[in-house]
Parts: sequence; C-alpha cells; structure tokens
Amino acid sequence: MSQEKDSLDFQVMQTRLREFAQARDWEQFHSPKNLSMALIVEAAELVEHFQWLTEPQSTSLPADKLQQVAYELADIFIYTLRLADRLHVDLPATVQRKIELNEKKYPADKVKGSAKKYTEYGSGE
Amino acid sequence: MSQEKDSLDFQVMQTRLREFAQARDWEQFHSPKNLSMALIVEAAELVEHFQWLTEPQSTSLPADKLQQVAYELADIFIYTLRLADRLHVDLPATVQRKIELNEKKYPADKVKGSAKKYTEYGSGE
Amino acid sequence: MSQEKDSLDFQVMQTRLREFAQARDWEQFHSPKNLSMALIVEAAELVEHFQWLTEPQSTSLPADKLQQVAYELADIFIYTLRLADRLHVDLPATVQRKIELNEKKYPADKVKGSAKKYTEYGSGE
Amino acid sequence: MSQEKDSLDFQVMQTRLREFAQARDWEQFHSPKNLSMALIVEAAELVEHFQWLTEPQSTSLPADKLQQVAYELADIFIYTLRLADRLHVDLPATVQRKIELNEKKYPADKVKGSAKKYTEYGSGE
Repeated sequence: MSQEKDSLDFQVMQTRLREFAQARDWEQFHSPKNLSMALIVEAAELVEHFQWLTEPQSTSLPADKLQQVAYELADIFIYTLRLADRLHVDLPATVQRKIELNEKKYPADKVKGSAKKYTEYGSGE
Repeated sequence: MSQEKDSLDFQVMQTRLREFAQARDWEQFHSPKNLSMALIVEAAELVEHFQWLTEPQSTSLPADKLQQVAYELADIFIYTLRLADRLHVDLPATVQRKIELNEKKYPADKVKGSAKKYTEYGSGE
Repeated sequence: MSQEKDSLDFQVMQTRLREFAQARDWEQFHSPKNLSMALIVEAAELVEHFQWLTEPQSTSLPADKLQQVAYELADIFIYTLRLADRLHVDLPATVQRKIELNEKKYPADKVKGSAKKYTEYGSGE
Repeated sequence: MSQEKDSLDFQVMQTRLREFAQARDWEQFHSPKNLSMALIVEAAELVEHFQWLTEPQSTSLPADKLQQVAYELADIFIYTLRLADRLHVDLPATVQRKIELNEKKYPADKVKGSAKKYTEYGSGE
C-alpha cells in the first residue's frame, strides 16, 4: 500500500523524469514550447488508434491494442508532468481546483436531462 | 500531508471524475473515441499558448498566461484519467513501466554527448 | 470560369498570403516550426466541432455549424499553403505524387472486400 | 500549362479522391468525424518533424526530411479536400472569403509596428 502510494506521488515522478532528462543532456530540448509539441504528438498517437473505430469498438479494444493505448496515455501523462515541472505548476492542486470550477460551472441538477445539449456546455470538464 | 496524499490519489480523482460525469448523464458521450478527441483539443489549447512564442519566452510566462496554461494541463490530465478509467488502465503502474522501458531504451551513458542527435532518438520519453 | 480558375490557383493564393504576412511584419513569426503549431491548432478547432457528435450527426450539420466548419477547413488550408510557401514545396505536384503512391500501395482489387481490415491498412490515403 | 491548371483543380482532385475511396469501399469509414481525426493525426506527424528543432533549423531542412514534410503537407491537404467533399463545402471559395475577412480584421496599417503584440491578434490569418 505504501508502495502504491509512492507510485502515485506526482513529485516523485516529476523528479525522476527531470533526472532522466538531465542525465541525457535533454533538458536543453525541453522548453515548454517544445514539450507542448511533443505532448500533442503523443495525443495524436492516441487518436490514431481510434480514428476508424466506431464508438462501441473503442470501448472494447483487443488486448494488444489496449496495451498500446495504455502506453500512449502514459506518454501523455509523462509530458504533462514534464511541462508542470518546467513551469513550476502544482499539477494535483490545479486539477483539484479545475474540478471544483467545473462542478460550479455545470450544476448537475441543471445539466441533467438536457444531455442532448451537451455540446453547448462545451467539453464539460 | 495526508490531505496532500489524498489529492495525489489517482483513484480518488478517477472516481470523482466518473461520478461528475454520471451525475450529469455525460457517460454516454465519454466513449474512448470521443475522449481521445476531447483530449487532443485540450492539448491544442496548450499549444496555442506557445505557438508564436520563442522557446525562451515559453519558459517565463506572465502570471495570467501561466495560470491559463496550468488549467490546460489540468484539463489534459482530467481527460487522460477519464480515458484510463473507461479503459480500465492502471495509469500510475503503466507510467512506471514506461519510464523503466525508456531508461533501458535510452541508456544515459550512450545518449549523453550525442545530444545533437536527439531527434534520431525520437521523443526520448 | 476564368475567375474560378484563378481562385483555384495555388500560386496566386500563396502569393496573396505571403504579401498579407509581409504587410503586417508577420513573416518573422512564420517559421515552419511555428506554422506547424498554428496548423494543428486549427485542426483541433475542427475536431472540437465533431468531438461529441455521432458519426451520422457529423454528416448532417446545421447550417451555422457547417459554416464554422468550412472556415476551419479554410484556416487549415491557409496554413498548409503558408508552410508550402516557406519551405518551397510544390504542393499540387506533391499531392499528385502522393495520390499515385497511394493508388499503388492500396490496390483496389486487393483492398476491396476486406474493408473491415481498414485500420491495418493505415490511413489509406 | 493547361495540364498544370488541371493539376491545380480542386474539383478534379476531390473527385479522384472520392473515387479512390469508393473503389476500396472506404467511404463507410470517411464520416466527417473520422476524417477530422485522420486530419489531425497527419498534422501531428508534421509537428513531430519540428518538435525538437529550433526555428532557424525548421527553415532549412535536409533534403530527405523536406521530402517527408512535403508528403505530410500533401496528406493534410488530401484529408482537407475529402472533408470538403463529404460536407459539400466549396473550399476555394471559402478560402477566398476567409482571406478577405482576415484582411478586414487585421488592417495592415494598424497591425504593422505592433508586431510584438502578435499573439493578441490571434492566429493572424
């Protein structure tokens, strides 16, 4: 359990990724501008897996494809963390705040039942 | 401290985001295919902040822009978590494994000193 | 008719876009790196229109949404042309060549009938 | 010359791409939703070429890389045309209109000299 907690620790992961880059002299490439490009490239690799699938197909991927998708999600998260590190953003605190903002912006009782208007509410998260 | 640990807990966040979507009848829209589209849209909002900046400018953003960028990172992370939840992917474990794979794939002693060949090593992470 | 032909002329459009940028001192921002970022941001604005729609919904958009989508396509094409201009790429000739390559790569008689394997053929174009 | 004009003809290219898809039974996959995903995936392949380059490097690519970039631009254009075809959008006319709108929105005499405020003018095109 404590090991699991460690694995969840954003700070530990951030530090590890920073040291990974430093040990390879890669920090010089990791400007926020460049990292944002790398992040969207990974996001597109995710999209590529789903582009010709129907929505139902996208919910039940074969095991090998699911493994690839899982690694794309990991890559996206890794670059998100690297960006947070370079910009000194406290990611978990910002996520908390963003969720709270969304809960106010989209009150469940008003939103529910008008699901067909979802697109008008924007991304919803 | 324990509160901070809680805030870091992927599972807690995943559950909260799932309940947020369920309470609004939004689960119906959150197929992995659609979530991958929403995620790349958020990634592009991040890119938009940096598109006309030089790399040095991208490292020292004014406070209000930094706040916006922080929220984009939060949005990206939120959709990453939602996808992991819908696909039953253990995100922190996958991130761990991906980092370990990268450490083997790009041995620091071989990579260092050939930094100019970075692009040939791919994204490096 | 001759006017229509003119409107189709890539060169004319490229020149007009170049002069547009020059007249505003914007060429300095239009490095290929930056233009690639601007292009993917426009592509994401297109994706955003479709992210929560079903595939059938995406084929029959209401008029106002269709107009917005049309302008996104125009923006994407504008940045594609700008990039071709900055890189001295002959876009129509390259498109011709790419179509010919695709026709060889995906012979109709072999591909047809295995449509369900589409994803294995890649993007197909 | 007349051949070159033909090669520039959007309609001719659109028809050829439509027949290409029809001959392979691929029209079924080419919903606007799916095509927008394919388009952004191609845009990301373009971004990938530039992600670790400096802006000056991005302006003087080695010949083999330039060839690859040219094909990415072709792929982006092909999907843009396919989308225009599926949505019955007159792309060259819309591009014309968008350029005219931009010329009004960003008057050269006002914009010039405040180039450092470029980001506030948005994408500028």
